[in-house]
Amino acid sequence: MNGAKALVDTLSQAGIELCFSNPGTSEMHILEALDTSDLRCVLCLAEGVASGAADGYGRMAEKPAVTLLHLGPGFTNAMANLHNARRAHTPIINIVGDHPNYHQQYDVPLSSDIAGSASVVSQWVRRCRQVDQLAADTVAAIEAACHTPSQIASLIVPADVSWGQTQHVAPVVPALCRPASMPDQQVVEQVVEQVVEQAAHCLQSSQPDEPVALLLGGDVTEAQIRCASAIANHAGAALYCDTFPSRIARGQGCGRIERMPYLPEMAADLLKNIKHIVLVGAQPPVSFFAYPHLDSWLLPDGCSIHCLSTPQQDAGAALAALAEHLSVDIAEAAVYDAAPPQLASGELNPSTLSQSIGALLVEDTIVVDEGITGGAEIFLTTANSPRHDWIIQGGGAIGWGLSAAVGAALACPERKVLCLEGDGSGLYSNQALWTMARENLDITIVIFANRNYAILQFEYLHVGAQEMGACAESQMSIGNPDIDYAGLAEAMGVRASKATTMEEFNQQFGEAMSQCGPWLIEAIY
Amino acid sequence: MNGAKALVDTLSQAGIELCFSNPGTSEMHILEALDTSDLRCVLCLAEGVASGAADGYGRMAEKPAVTLLHLGPGFTNAMANLHNARRAHTPIINIVGDHPNYHQQYDVPLSSDIAGSASVVSQWVRRCRQVDQLAADTVAAIEAACHTPSQIASLIVPADVSWGQTQHVAPVVPALCRPASMPDQQVVEQVVEQVVEQAAHCLQSSQPDEPVALLLGGDVTEAQIRCASAIANHAGAALYCDTFPSRIARGQGCGRIERMPYLPEMAADLLKNIKHIVLVGAQPPVSFFAYPHLDSWLLPDGCSIHCLSTPQQDAGAALAALAEHLSVDIAEAAVYDAAPPQLASGELNPSTLSQSIGALLVEDTIVVDEGITGGAEIFLTTANSPRHDWIIQGGGAIGWGLSAAVGAALACPERKVLCLEGDGSGLYSNQALWTMARENLDITIVIFANRNYAILQFEYLHVGAQEMGACAESQMSIGNPDIDYAGLAEAMGVRASKATTMEEFNQQFGEAMSQCGPWLIEAIY
Repeated sequence: MNGAKALVDTLSQAGIELCFSNPGTSEMHILEALDTSDLRCVLCLAEGVASGAADGYGRMAEKPAVTLLHLGPGFTNAMANLHNARRAHTPIINIVGDHPNYHQQYDVPLSSDIAGSASVVSQWVRRCRQVDQLAADTVAAIEAACHTPSQIASLIVPADVSWGQTQHVAPVVPALCRPASMPDQQVVEQVVEQVVEQAAHCLQSSQPDEPVALLLGGDVTEAQIRCASAIANHAGAALYCDTFPSRIARGQGCGRIERMPYLPEMAADLLKNIKHIVLVGAQPPVSFFAYPHLDSWLLPDGCSIHCLSTPQQDAGAALAALAEHLSVDIAEAAVYDAAPPQLASGELNPSTLSQSIGALLVEDTIVVDEGITGGAEIFLTTANSPRHDWIIQGGGAIGWGLSAAVGAALACPERKVLCLEGDGSGLYSNQALWTMARENLDITIVIFANRNYAILQFEYLHVGAQEMGACAESQMSIGNPDIDYAGLAEAMGVRASKATTMEEFNQQFGEAMSQCGPWLIEAIY
Repeated sequence: MNGAKALVDTLSQAGIELCFSNPGTSEMHILEALDTSDLRCVLCLAEGVASGAADGYGRMAEKPAVTLLHLGPGFTNAMANLHNARRAHTPIINIVGDHPNYHQQYDVPLSSDIAGSASVVSQWVRRCRQVDQLAADTVAAIEAACHTPSQIASLIVPADVSWGQTQHVAPVVPALCRPASMPDQQVVEQVVEQVVEQAAHCLQSSQPDEPVALLLGGDVTEAQIRCASAIANHAGAALYCDTFPSRIARGQGCGRIERMPYLPEMAADLLKNIKHIVLVGAQPPVSFFAYPHLDSWLLPDGCSIHCLSTPQQDAGAALAALAEHLSVDIAEAAVYDAAPPQLASGELNPSTLSQSIGALLVEDTIVVDEGITGGAEIFLTTANSPRHDWIIQGGGAIGWGLSAAVGAALACPERKVLCLEGDGSGLYSNQALWTMARENLDITIVIFANRNYAILQFEYLHVGAQEMGACAESQMSIGNPDIDYAGLAEAMGVRASKATTMEEFNQQFGEAMSQCGPWLIEAIY
């Protein structure tokens, strides 16, 4: 067989099911090999869509997808969403073609430092040196991606490695794994010994003048929140999650939890009296951006930090151990009731949109959140809606939502995906709409069409810039001309509608929730 | 003043006129400073549009534009078109914001190795360390971009450097320069001494059994081609240019020149009898991609290489010196007559499109060529059309054309821009359409809507992959659903029409050539 077939067979045998592809000439043999494999190939019309989709897929499937990318420039187009994936600890395997070494010596137009680019966003990078090594390198890439916590693995495959002949097939098919499926016993023991007692001690001593907070980060599961909520209630502690958890279980029956505010002054105010913070898969809270007259570090002076579990450890097992140590009954958890908000009517704005989305959200929805300012309230208004999962772009690389929605829908084809998308952020990877149409993915998209980079208008003043002149104003407005988002979606094959009142929105969103297939609603305000 | 103002004032004083921007929170003070400067700010809705526009601008304006990019992920989105610009020796200055160093220590979500990314596509990278250094660093960036040949310079500006106070304004305003405006005397003398005699000797000895070829690359000016043509005619030599010159003068009155074919077997066949090749700003011809059974090196065994001028040297001066040495009269040049083709009628296909575009092209047009397979013949059918300039994507990073057209139109607002764009390649940076609409740029776009990555369908078999299965076929087709390009353009505010016959195309293209403003024609075949 040729190298390309050894590569694809190894991926397939390891249980990889999906390839988000945007290949070129140097990946044609890999495409040929995919033709006779079990891997499902999903074409993306831009590489950022492929990497964003792999992120959405990885967060929901809890195993890696493959991206197939064309040389250095193809990889660089994928980097922004790989940055987001890296921050979310999503497992992804990038397969990047390259020229053969004998061709590289001529510094041809498409030669570039692929490993250099890959190193910026990948924890594991390797260039396959020879075809007989490719199956083993592929195994190494899979193992690297399935590390605890999950990682970005980038394997560079020169074209002569793809087309060369080999007998070497991977000897070992690694099990795909995630932190939650790691053997827990050792972690638990370690946690109990070293950390739980300390955390338990500070929780037991929680008093009005020594307040304690628990902070959860990363993949915040239903079991974790419920356990943490029970502990917090038992101890009289506050319970928070990161501003941008990579995934969080939400809705009726899930434990109550408060997100750390995005704005540093609000977060610092929330934390100002905390004397102890117990971190569960989270970093100590820090301001997302720096501001001239605000501290980056958000914890008050004198606050002690207790790390119950790092992202490398099993947060669920650690919380369970802590609950057991404290003799906490999980039934003590405070959970969200079945009490979705009423439908909003009249003026369409972020608040009324949030209310109606809370009212109409269907059970088991995956919410993919890049709503920025427009979607900021929806996390709250859906708390009492039917059980759902929430994934959010926390790496700060804009242009993730539509792509991640593609991946989430392919990971969970039986579930509705709701993509909350800013009109500015949605533009960066609008090509994802076409893949939604081609694959007929069950995605409802709400575009918050305020015709502005509204977050920047806020941040402009927040960083201390003075009044806004014509130039600054024009660089933060995406009107003139207004983008016809519904028209854009239809041009890519996606059903679309516009809403300018809540009556229109309620009708459209309600219908979109109850049907199958992609539907974009441009909510104009 | 603050650092941002020192930065912007330094750019402005050096004669920089244009900023292609897609800023974020860490660049807000720079936006504020731009508000009171002479620099024109053009908003791009994706960073690849900003860098592609800067490439198109730099090639036509012969001086750098600035891009304003948001941190690491913003920079990575710009990299593919910076790769193209680097290959074309286009001068560009990237201004990339970053977190303050005191904020970086927390490894916040948007922290990344910006210098690592920048190094992949920039010849000059610097991170400004303190506000008092910023003006001097800006001067250094301008000088680096205006190096001979031109370069990509990336200056990383932490937010506290932007908002910090300084009295340091750049002491020296560098002259913006390009190779053609460098002092030539020294170069000429060097050329005459070391190279011209050798080149002259081989040209003088050109005989049927010792054929000689001249190969021009880079920015191939009207004067260069005419001089080279006269020399070639005088000596009985062949005259070629690179497959992808960064810019080339074309049309009536320009010297006749043949482009090196893209396919290695065709190029090797063309060169098979050449005994001497004289390089003028070009590299020895090498295959764009590697193929299993073809040589990458295209010159025949025993062919001598004579370098008349490197990209670092002044090709015009070197050719003039050579002509003088050989006593060549420039009037000996073979030039293209005023003999455009007739309008085509009936079936719309790449050949008939090429014919009609040749018939209708207006004088002084800038052709921005990313037509890939659909536009391959147009370089030939426009040779006898009115005088025009041609810029082409030669770096191989797809998604350049629409963006480069934005930059070319802003560099030369009095000239028509014709953008030849594949339907696959056009999707990568379709956001450029919006900037065309907002700035009302005089750009006619022809989309070759064959609903396929047609180049890949060809390359698939060319690299030796066997018959095409359903998966491979689906990954090279961008139909199912077909993209409604005219609808996409209209959604972004650009006038658009569809043509399925040559009668429709002729009418639309003729009208587009004679009016002002952006107009996209979707040529469906």
